[in-house]
Amino acid sequence: MKRLEQQMQFIEEIDKEKSIYRQSYICDGSRKENDAEHAWHMSIMALLLSEHVAPEIDVLETISMLLIHDLVEIDAGDTYAYDEAAKRDQKEREAKAAKRIFGLLPDDQKEKFMNLFAEFETGNSKEAQFARALDRFQPMILNAASGGKSWKEHEVKLSSIEERNEQTKANAKELWDYAFKEFLEPHVKKGNIIND
Amino acid sequence: MKRLEQQMQFIEEIDKEKSIYRQSYICDGSRKENDAEHAWHMSIMALLLSEHVAPEIDVLETISMLLIHDLVEIDAGDTYAYDEAAKRDQKEREAKAAKRIFGLLPDDQKEKFMNLFAEFETGNSKEAQFARALDRFQPMILNAASGGKSWKEHEVKLSSIEERNEQTKANAKELWDYAFKEFLEPHVKKGNIIND
Repeated sequence: MKRLEQQMQFIEEIDKEKSIYRQSYICDGSRKENDAEHAWHMSIMALLLSEHVAPEIDVLETISMLLIHDLVEIDAGDTYAYDEAAKRDQKEREAKAAKRIFGLLPDDQKEKFMNLFAEFETGNSKEAQFARALDRFQPMILNAASGGKSWKEHEVKLSSIEERNEQTKANAKELWDYAFKEFLEPHVKKGNIIND
Repeated sequence: MKRLEQQMQFIEEIDKEKSIYRQSYICDGSRKENDAEHAWHMSIMALLLSEHVAPEIDVLETISMLLIHDLVEIDAGDTYAYDEAAKRDQKEREAKAAKRIFGLLPDDQKEKFMNLFAEFETGNSKEAQFARALDRFQPMILNAASGGKSWKEHEVKLSSIEERNEQTKANAKELWDYAFKEFLEPHVKKGNIIND
């Protein structure tokens, strides 16, 4: 029973991800989105959108990364994409968290999840590049739908969004072009994103 | 661009699943869980627990079903497992919802998701049986961790839980035995589940 007990401890522990809130609002603007919802949303996006990026991609590997890569925030907290101060020690905080949280699992599954987390972080595979592109793309959908609320609140500049989405541009050009035209341009016009 | 537009309409529409609340509380008991969080939690469980059920299972197919099978509740609402009245027209309401929501997608992807939804509903594959077992198993983790709150609120009987988990017993016996001993027995003793 030991193995199942370890798995169950992990499964109960990760319930906490449902209480880690991000800076993006859900589409109706009523409240912020949490990490679990974000991972779920992107996983379905991975099922649908891989054809635009790399049709031969291993979708299960992509989804596995999307499902687990934010678990470290249970200990390390959510680091807002445009908060340069918090981003300085983010890697260190998250590495420590990965050790503790994935360490609850049986050794082989711990190793598997540590590897998936590292793969996502380094972006060293087509699957990781697609997962990272979705991680940048999904908040733009939410921000655009919720009236640019989060962009306004944080006085986000267009150049910062472009910089953050360099990988999206490089690896998922069709998605980036769509986002630029449908999500960013209208909110630049409305003044919700600073046109610098 | 038409195809990507249809996909994006669907992706924005399903954001509403984050506002469909279930009867189970998240583990700390602070609030109820929503469908998106539930799907995310079970998807990670599928990654970890298939070895106890059917090691040769297609995990991507299982996860695909888990990710999308509650989308119909955007129109049909959450039907509580032990609400016999609401369950009477549940199938009909959900079939209508599936048509509208999956109908936003390009035809091939609409068909794929309709098929996954039907597969989950009928339980006609090992993957669907595993997905259904997880769908019954996961709320027991949450209910047990949150002090049996939801069982108490709905005066749930042990016989009802056993009946609802017949498939879990048949298809995921190790998980059911664990749940019975670790989640149900302690709450029967405390009187949170009615021992009928």
